[in-house]
Amino acid sequence: MDHLNPTQTLATWITALRPGDIPAATRRDGLRTFVNWLGCAVGGATHETVDRALAAVAPFSGPARATVLGRRERLDELHAALINGISSHVLDYDDTHLKTIIHPAGPVASAVLAVAEPRRDSGRELLTAVTIGVAVACRIGNSVYPDHYDRGWHITGTTGVFGAAAAVGWLLRLSPQQMAWALGIAATQASGLREMFGTMTKSLHPGRAAQNGAMAAFLAHAGFDSSERGIEAKRGFAHVLSTKQSFGEITEGLGERWEASLNSYKPFACGIVIHPTIDGCCQLREEFGSLASQAIEVELHTHPLVLELTGKTAPKTGLEGKFSVYHSAAMALIHGDGSPTAFTDAAVLDPAVVALRQRIRVVTHPDMHEASVRIIIKLADGKVVERHVERAIGSLERPLDEAALSRKFVGQAAPVLSEAGSRRLLDLAWSLEEAADAGELLGAAVPAQRSA
Amino acid sequence: MDHLNPTQTLATWITALRPGDIPAATRRDGLRTFVNWLGCAVGGATHETVDRALAAVAPFSGPARATVLGRRERLDELHAALINGISSHVLDYDDTHLKTIIHPAGPVASAVLAVAEPRRDSGRELLTAVTIGVAVACRIGNSVYPDHYDRGWHITGTTGVFGAAAAVGWLLRLSPQQMAWALGIAATQASGLREMFGTMTKSLHPGRAAQNGAMAAFLAHAGFDSSERGIEAKRGFAHVLSTKQSFGEITEGLGERWEASLNSYKPFACGIVIHPTIDGCCQLREEFGSLASQAIEVELHTHPLVLELTGKTAPKTGLEGKFSVYHSAAMALIHGDGSPTAFTDAAVLDPAVVALRQRIRVVTHPDMHEASVRIIIKLADGKVVERHVERAIGSLERPLDEAALSRKFVGQAAPVLSEAGSRRLLDLAWSLEEAADAGELLGAAVPAQRSA
Repeated sequence: MDHLNPTQTLATWITALRPGDIPAATRRDGLRTFVNWLGCAVGGATHETVDRALAAVAPFSGPARATVLGRRERLDELHAALINGISSHVLDYDDTHLKTIIHPAGPVASAVLAVAEPRRDSGRELLTAVTIGVAVACRIGNSVYPDHYDRGWHITGTTGVFGAAAAVGWLLRLSPQQMAWALGIAATQASGLREMFGTMTKSLHPGRAAQNGAMAAFLAHAGFDSSERGIEAKRGFAHVLSTKQSFGEITEGLGERWEASLNSYKPFACGIVIHPTIDGCCQLREEFGSLASQAIEVELHTHPLVLELTGKTAPKTGLEGKFSVYHSAAMALIHGDGSPTAFTDAAVLDPAVVALRQRIRVVTHPDMHEASVRIIIKLADGKVVERHVERAIGSLERPLDEAALSRKFVGQAAPVLSEAGSRRLLDLAWSLEEAADAGELLGAAVPAQRSA
Repeated sequence: MDHLNPTQTLATWITALRPGDIPAATRRDGLRTFVNWLGCAVGGATHETVDRALAAVAPFSGPARATVLGRRERLDELHAALINGISSHVLDYDDTHLKTIIHPAGPVASAVLAVAEPRRDSGRELLTAVTIGVAVACRIGNSVYPDHYDRGWHITGTTGVFGAAAAVGWLLRLSPQQMAWALGIAATQASGLREMFGTMTKSLHPGRAAQNGAMAAFLAHAGFDSSERGIEAKRGFAHVLSTKQSFGEITEGLGERWEASLNSYKPFACGIVIHPTIDGCCQLREEFGSLASQAIEVELHTHPLVLELTGKTAPKTGLEGKFSVYHSAAMALIHGDGSPTAFTDAAVLDPAVVALRQRIRVVTHPDMHEASVRIIIKLADGKVVERHVERAIGSLERPLDEAALSRKFVGQAAPVLSEAGSRRLLDLAWSLEEAADAGELLGAAVPAQRSA
């Protein structure tokens, strides 16, 4: 009856795990999650959200033992976890566990890498910890999704703190009892409200989950006790923050089903519902060249959810552009771009993009699948071109392959690290499993010192 | 229609407040809250909960600008706020806002004092900030209590973070917009589960609320934005964490009703629901001497909440003893003790106490008031002694006066600072309003250096 004791069951399982217990294919899934996260964190590192967070917290940092990705600053492990968690999420370009829409790497990998760096843990240990953390966060998410999310919780924050605690606790070799305490200390810090979407504070959620989860592990390691039933107790996490509690999702198939294998990686830097449209528009541009000047009207046939979530007709900022299927389709048709450069203020105000987006019409069909789109473009010469996308690139059915992940990585990291620098970091990241000291890649993860 | 915009209304009110806007009697209430909190933090500072928390977090501390009360360590402001918040609550001896059972000083004063110290804010400024923070935490608590608490939230943590953000934000002279952001960043960190009661993690809640609230203010000060409707939005604090939202409790009578005036100070080092029982048992011992050897049976007639919250029949640690009305009654009947010495591991395992507590029976009456008790003791010689307590000492109806607060202070602080040292600190604390530099009292708040 493990499902009656999910906290204890998880604690026992996590602490007994050895790297060799994780199948090779799953380890590779964990590596893909890490590589994608690393590119996102480097790519997001120069965002003003990160500038402001750093300005606020750097005066409180302890000894500078840990790297801030994509920047020259160094902080203590907990603050580095915070900032890297913010950077990795700020462009809405990170990984998605599609069953729960958790972005697990932000909380988990940010905590693990910062803690592993001064400990000089091996790449194999780091990847084991990441894979464990993703499993814990997403399994706990499965147990309460969708009720928990519908109620207003940003599930990346609320479950990410457990993942970070489990992952760091594994690195620290907590005893099963200490691991149960760490999960309890995580439970009592679970937080993050969806009201914050559209503000800088959305990115704070994975950052704080990383920092708070790591601290939970350090507290438990020092003998700071907590409930050993933090997840399942009547006044514990699952009952207080959700009306649904499916504890079998946490306890069944441990070591057999791995949530890292269900993780997906965004090809486009915006909410997942626009991805089919961007994909289809990019395909049309690839085949026919830019159709902008000839297009009289563009029809997008979609599920109504697309319009509900991303129906902004006249976005004014890059951030608003992420919530406009019109802007996104126009950028893809003209430039074939769905990367962060498609969602800058300048891109959103570009007259050519504005002109085209005004000729785009969305027709909704409740019976269509949310992940599909049909695009119909009427041209000036009377011709019509069409494209149907059943499932977008980046979905579980059409995942980004490693070559595409690498292109995404360099596309993000190059503006921060240079093209050569980002390729060097990428090579080190893909070979992380063999690194005796995982932190060695961090030398390549910061921009070169500027000449005076 | 202020009640539609409680976040903005609070932000506008807080930022416009000047010390002279607070009536003298209210300022004195704020001072009493501060003095009681200071004694509790010094008295709790040597508890192993604090030792372990310090061992875990000290390696991550920034520059040592702030005092850890009752100890020689110094930390950055945010970590000092964390540790002082833990110390002040660990003995369950701190203040109680009886309408909501919030313990507001832990989150608020811990944050304010740590931030004020290196800034050299005046005593008047410090007390203004504390009084504002108590108002904000308790008003937000009023708006969601009791549903929020009943659901399982430790309301001291969930509302304390707002109080700390408001108080520190006031010290930092945030703009109204920045203050709204700070309240939003507080909202999204609101956490703390009642499942943690009886463990070290309960005390973590006011500590983290202090630390997180202060950080929210520093983030907002650096321009890190958030929702400006963090309290009232559909997916904001009040709707996600409560089924009750009475926003008029937040917005009405601002500057007229002050929650610090409703704060009370515990005469006994445990949850408030056992206080009538301890008071009555102490009264019986005072009148009849120890009845332990003659008592065949002790009946406690109480509201059911007493048993729900403190029904542990066989506590094994001092901390568990605080959640046992049986142990508490036995200690009071035998030793007349409800102070921290009544809740040590040794006290809980004392055979005489264990023998008596096993003869104690609780009879619950839903129609009784939660703050009342009737105690009936059947003696070996057939006699029966009884005591009815309508309201316990320490309640708003029978408050501790300043002389009693001073005795409580010295009783707690003397074992840590020496008798003379604790009186010196007490004098400085009572005259805080006149201090040009509030932090000057901190030299008296740490134990003398041990000779080598």
